[in-house]
Amino acid sequence: MTQPRYDVIAIGNAIVDVIANTDDEFIAEEQLTKGGMQLVDEQRADALYSAMGPAREISGGSAANTLAGMSMLGRQCAFIGQVADDQLGQVFAHDIRATGIDFDVAARAGEPATARCLIFVTPDAERTMNTFLGASQFLPADLIDSDAIQSAGILYLEGYLWDPEEPRAAMRRAIEHAKAAGRKVAFTLSDAFVIDRYRDDFISLINDGLIDIMFANEVEISSLAQIEDFEEAVAAISAKVPLLVVTRSEKGAIAVKDGTRHEVAAEPVEKLVDTTGAGDLFAAGFLAGLSEGREIDACLKMGAICAAEVISHYGARPEADIKALVAEAL
Amino acid sequence: MTQPRYDVIAIGNAIVDVIANTDDEFIAEEQLTKGGMQLVDEQRADALYSAMGPAREISGGSAANTLAGMSMLGRQCAFIGQVADDQLGQVFAHDIRATGIDFDVAARAGEPATARCLIFVTPDAERTMNTFLGASQFLPADLIDSDAIQSAGILYLEGYLWDPEEPRAAMRRAIEHAKAAGRKVAFTLSDAFVIDRYRDDFISLINDGLIDIMFANEVEISSLAQIEDFEEAVAAISAKVPLLVVTRSEKGAIAVKDGTRHEVAAEPVEKLVDTTGAGDLFAAGFLAGLSEGREIDACLKMGAICAAEVISHYGARPEADIKALVAEAL
Repeated sequence: MTQPRYDVIAIGNAIVDVIANTDDEFIAEEQLTKGGMQLVDEQRADALYSAMGPAREISGGSAANTLAGMSMLGRQCAFIGQVADDQLGQVFAHDIRATGIDFDVAARAGEPATARCLIFVTPDAERTMNTFLGASQFLPADLIDSDAIQSAGILYLEGYLWDPEEPRAAMRRAIEHAKAAGRKVAFTLSDAFVIDRYRDDFISLINDGLIDIMFANEVEISSLAQIEDFEEAVAAISAKVPLLVVTRSEKGAIAVKDGTRHEVAAEPVEKLVDTTGAGDLFAAGFLAGLSEGREIDACLKMGAICAAEVISHYGARPEADIKALVAEAL
Repeated sequence: MTQPRYDVIAIGNAIVDVIANTDDEFIAEEQLTKGGMQLVDEQRADALYSAMGPAREISGGSAANTLAGMSMLGRQCAFIGQVADDQLGQVFAHDIRATGIDFDVAARAGEPATARCLIFVTPDAERTMNTFLGASQFLPADLIDSDAIQSAGILYLEGYLWDPEEPRAAMRRAIEHAKAAGRKVAFTLSDAFVIDRYRDDFISLINDGLIDIMFANEVEISSLAQIEDFEEAVAAISAKVPLLVVTRSEKGAIAVKDGTRHEVAAEPVEKLVDTTGAGDLFAAGFLAGLSEGREIDACLKMGAICAAEVISHYGARPEADIKALVAEAL
């Protein structure tokens, strides 16, 4: 088995976030599901954009955000995702490459446009997301080959991308290649609504022993296990997943590795601005620690530090020098 | 004379800012003029973008930023500027309309793309700008008619836009219409390098009594007057301009109205992040005060408050509720 070139290769949505402040009345009026992610078609995206206040555009995408954090922490990463041949596609590709991540999927010509996520941030810093998947959903499954997947120690998959058919096929293929090459498979559940749509798929992957590392939040783990009680839900899933990491917002996070439970408190945040990317950056810190061969407690601490950084400003990519923050703390 | 519908109508560049952090070594290596604005062609813009770190996109343009601030302060504004029919053009148009500004210039089909300004922010929060004017330079002069200019109490012009030929013609035509209708003409000098290129034009405008209100910073006023001493430069220009406003960064700002000098201290800023838009937002606060019929000292205070807000975060459009900040202070 060759030594992997990358710590992590991820398959995810290639999205540019469009972030604006709003109030709770707007969320209610537009019948948005506060705190959740909703898929929207282009027409609905345009209508929502028209109703949206002045915005900022910052590259996003759950798995891409995680890689951005890992790369800033010094890890080697590669990203697989589909942009269109348009200005937002150029923005996404620029930002991910500028962060030091290898990204060589060619832009897709013609319609639809590059994916965008309209993010409404309420005064409580909660984000409500409306995603137009655009080109992202046309990631061709045949792009995924054994060499690419074998090139990384960990294959990281984004639950959000389970919705569109082609990327789902791409991810299934990637899992096969990873397992055949003796690589680890990490999966982030992304969203309770995604779990509602694909619970059977996700449970099958787990039961088949295809998931080595799973990331979730409290709502997601309960939804997946269909058990309301947090501890019971964690017990049920961690019995089948070698390493389970569950984030709990201001309550910190836990990890259960081979039956042993670890816990970390949330890092203090001076001013909570926008919770977008909290889970993504927790995963970034955790996986970076894991790739460095650190103990689980240190990995959790790194996750907490990165999550705290990203919720202190708009956008889901780190702004501060998270490597320095981690070095200071550990 | 009909009552104007708008407080201000502005002609300016329709630009999306692309903002990234960098260090002083990068500025030196790329031979950029720190603190200045340089015009670049598309090839150079692409090369600089490739070398740029991960960025955020926020609508900009000097006069457009000023209107954004004024609109947030409750004033009625209209903007004239040219975007291309592309995604960044949509971003610019969305953001300016979402701020409550009337903007009905049709997007221009075909090449070049919407203007973008690559802004490198160094650790001292100074911004170094590289502007690809793109579609912005093709603002057609015949778009400017008497009705439009007559619709506002103040015509606001951006010195940056004096560079390209068509918008320069548009601005000259706008000045004629404004003067014929008895409207005020406000002009912002924008940049010392722009003044170097067009000093004779600007001096002629002043000598011909066509400028009622002028905005400048310390460097610009000295450059325009070709007098190194600040007070002497101010005296020379204010002798010919009824209302001169000069911003002085941390030293605050002064205004000279009909020979009487007024002064304001800079507002304290908790954390200086990015000085982009400081002058634009000072002008916003000042002109909003003027439109409300306030005394010059109050106008200066409003300018200082708005400038302080915009330099406390990335991007040249206000994020905080500047109307509330002003109400609290005055």
